[in-house]
Amino acid sequence: MKILVINCGSSSVKYQLINVETEVVLAEGVAEKIGESFSLFTYKSKKFTKKKAETNLQNHEEAIEKIIEHITNKKNGVIANINEIQAVGHRLVHAGEHYSGSVKIDDDVLRVMEECISLAPLHNPANIKGVKAMQKILPDVDQCGVFDTAFHQTMPAKAYLYALPIELYNKHKIRRYGFHGTSHKFVSQKAAEYLQKDPSELKIITCHIGNGASIAAVKAGKSVDTSMGLTPLEGLVMGTRCGDLDPAIPIHMQKVLGMDVDEVNTILNKKSGILGLSALSKDMREIEDKVLQEKDPTATRALEVYVYRIKKYIGSYTAAMNGVDVVVFTGGVGENMPILREMVCSDMDYLGMQLNKQANDQVKSGILDLTGKNSKVKILKIPTNEELMIAMETKRIIEK
Amino acid sequence: MKILVINCGSSSVKYQLINVETEVVLAEGVAEKIGESFSLFTYKSKKFTKKKAETNLQNHEEAIEKIIEHITNKKNGVIANINEIQAVGHRLVHAGEHYSGSVKIDDDVLRVMEECISLAPLHNPANIKGVKAMQKILPDVDQCGVFDTAFHQTMPAKAYLYALPIELYNKHKIRRYGFHGTSHKFVSQKAAEYLQKDPSELKIITCHIGNGASIAAVKAGKSVDTSMGLTPLEGLVMGTRCGDLDPAIPIHMQKVLGMDVDEVNTILNKKSGILGLSALSKDMREIEDKVLQEKDPTATRALEVYVYRIKKYIGSYTAAMNGVDVVVFTGGVGENMPILREMVCSDMDYLGMQLNKQANDQVKSGILDLTGKNSKVKILKIPTNEELMIAMETKRIIEK
Repeated sequence: MKILVINCGSSSVKYQLINVETEVVLAEGVAEKIGESFSLFTYKSKKFTKKKAETNLQNHEEAIEKIIEHITNKKNGVIANINEIQAVGHRLVHAGEHYSGSVKIDDDVLRVMEECISLAPLHNPANIKGVKAMQKILPDVDQCGVFDTAFHQTMPAKAYLYALPIELYNKHKIRRYGFHGTSHKFVSQKAAEYLQKDPSELKIITCHIGNGASIAAVKAGKSVDTSMGLTPLEGLVMGTRCGDLDPAIPIHMQKVLGMDVDEVNTILNKKSGILGLSALSKDMREIEDKVLQEKDPTATRALEVYVYRIKKYIGSYTAAMNGVDVVVFTGGVGENMPILREMVCSDMDYLGMQLNKQANDQVKSGILDLTGKNSKVKILKIPTNEELMIAMETKRIIEK
Repeated sequence: MKILVINCGSSSVKYQLINVETEVVLAEGVAEKIGESFSLFTYKSKKFTKKKAETNLQNHEEAIEKIIEHITNKKNGVIANINEIQAVGHRLVHAGEHYSGSVKIDDDVLRVMEECISLAPLHNPANIKGVKAMQKILPDVDQCGVFDTAFHQTMPAKAYLYALPIELYNKHKIRRYGFHGTSHKFVSQKAAEYLQKDPSELKIITCHIGNGASIAAVKAGKSVDTSMGLTPLEGLVMGTRCGDLDPAIPIHMQKVLGMDVDEVNTILNKKSGILGLSALSKDMREIEDKVLQEKDPTATRALEVYVYRIKKYIGSYTAAMNGVDVVVFTGGVGENMPILREMVCSDMDYLGMQLNKQANDQVKSGILDLTGKNSKVKILKIPTNEELMIAMETKRIIEK
């Protein structure tokens, strides 16, 4: 079954055409700078190398038409006919408390997405645009939605409630939702498969560490806690996002430092994280170089803050689950930065956690077992694949 | 040596006259509602029962004069002459990064307190008033200051830095300071004494749980992390304070819910915590009654959030120290709420932590060992005594 997986941002559409059974990506790419005076378009298939062309895409609909045009193109396309696309899977962001799993998109789903705009003012409108454009272009094809928040809907109240006046939850739905759900679900399932265990037997901590970063406690296959909250700002230190903070700080920045609320918002989301701490870069590869090659003290200190936060969350979620069997590293940084994994896993003897340093230093794609010889906790590197997960979910839903 | 210990709030002065060598409190009380149309004054000594009288106290100076008048009073006082007060110990709040220990108060110290007003806009001005009034009334007596932040100054950068633009730290001193330092220091020292161990051998987690609540990781006698941050708003769920929150929430409350920054500040500090969650009371005794006697679901859920946060911090600080030898409960709630301690210590088998339920249910003053028979972690209830600690510190400083 060939499924087109779509991820719409406010000015971009990422796509992959996936053969679900073989797990082969037939074509992939991205349309960027939609609505700007010039747009960028990328297309890549096995027989056709990556191409990047300037083109003028007015809106999401034009972008999706361009995608379809490329994948069905006689010369360089990968399917002969639009009818070969058997379903579309959308990566969607916020469904509030409405869905704890993937859904077939209908008017109800669109209404829920509209309802949740206040919870995800940047993402949900873009997602809605993408769904509507796709419905127009492929009216007879089933569309499924896989929400970033859905996997975490199993969290108990003690984990999702903030200690705020309860009407802020009852009336305004302010609570922890968590994000990266598709990734946490995918790698936790892969971990169980890899270890040949039933998910019900396992307590897994999944560290999704990329430019955005979050960590989840997955007990018996279900998310029981996660570090991102109402928004993707809470939790770990990220590329440019601050993660955990004294909640008085945004107030202090306004009342004492005289900033306005938009300035504070921009600083916490765009100028903080490893970029703010290092005053150098949001890119962990640059931080890594500065640390390893130049022994730069500021970069080293920034990396220490970054790592320490991850260690504390592992400790915290181990307490939440009364133990941990597996720690999984995934995401761009988690998969490709051995020094990070080494720092996170060191001085964790109290859990009997021990890294296999040789395995950890290998540069190798696919799942890697990094567990030390006498470790009581399994340590795995598992490449995440949210697009494949979305395709698999879409297949499951439409076959129901 | 008789030492007068003073704790000045914006409209109150708490006091104790302590004989440091015998650890006996000779007299104690509080002047409240200073500057209001009627004030309250309390005085208590061994031979004289508590009295509460309405009286008009214009300012901190008048309040302190009233205190001196009572303790030196011919009939009901406890000392014959003002000269018997050999030193004054002040409980002070915020010294920024200036002092990591107690100090003899001189002009430099007062200047530091002035400098730190932006970090503690409510507390430092009141503290300064108290010191100046006392200097006027007892000009020849040594005055010492014991800062709430001092004990936590040993935290490493990875624990005290937020992932914000580094100039917010360099220029504006925005970082984690932590509070309740005197209490965390006192109970961690008492724990080592009680266990007849050298503090250097111990990893202790001290849970100071009262109306305000914080938790600290104390390794080899030094604070290495603590849950309160720039302000006392961060960390655990408190009586009316929210503790940890997605830092986007104060912004969301402004931008989406249309509140202004002062409203948000008031909600997070005065209407949140267990009061906000339960919509019932900020008093844990009332919550406990509702849970135990009425099985009230809202109160139960609020208590679960409260407890879960403590458990997660214990897990987090155990990771930070790579293990834990002792968990100490102190503060009004920590000392007097067995069900809280039981909930915190349950399902912590992964640490080998086990509570002695019988010991835990005892209502008994003084230090209690609550450690279960096969527990690998010691669990202690230790009554905090910040005033005694301040008196002891004051003695140590003036004898130097």
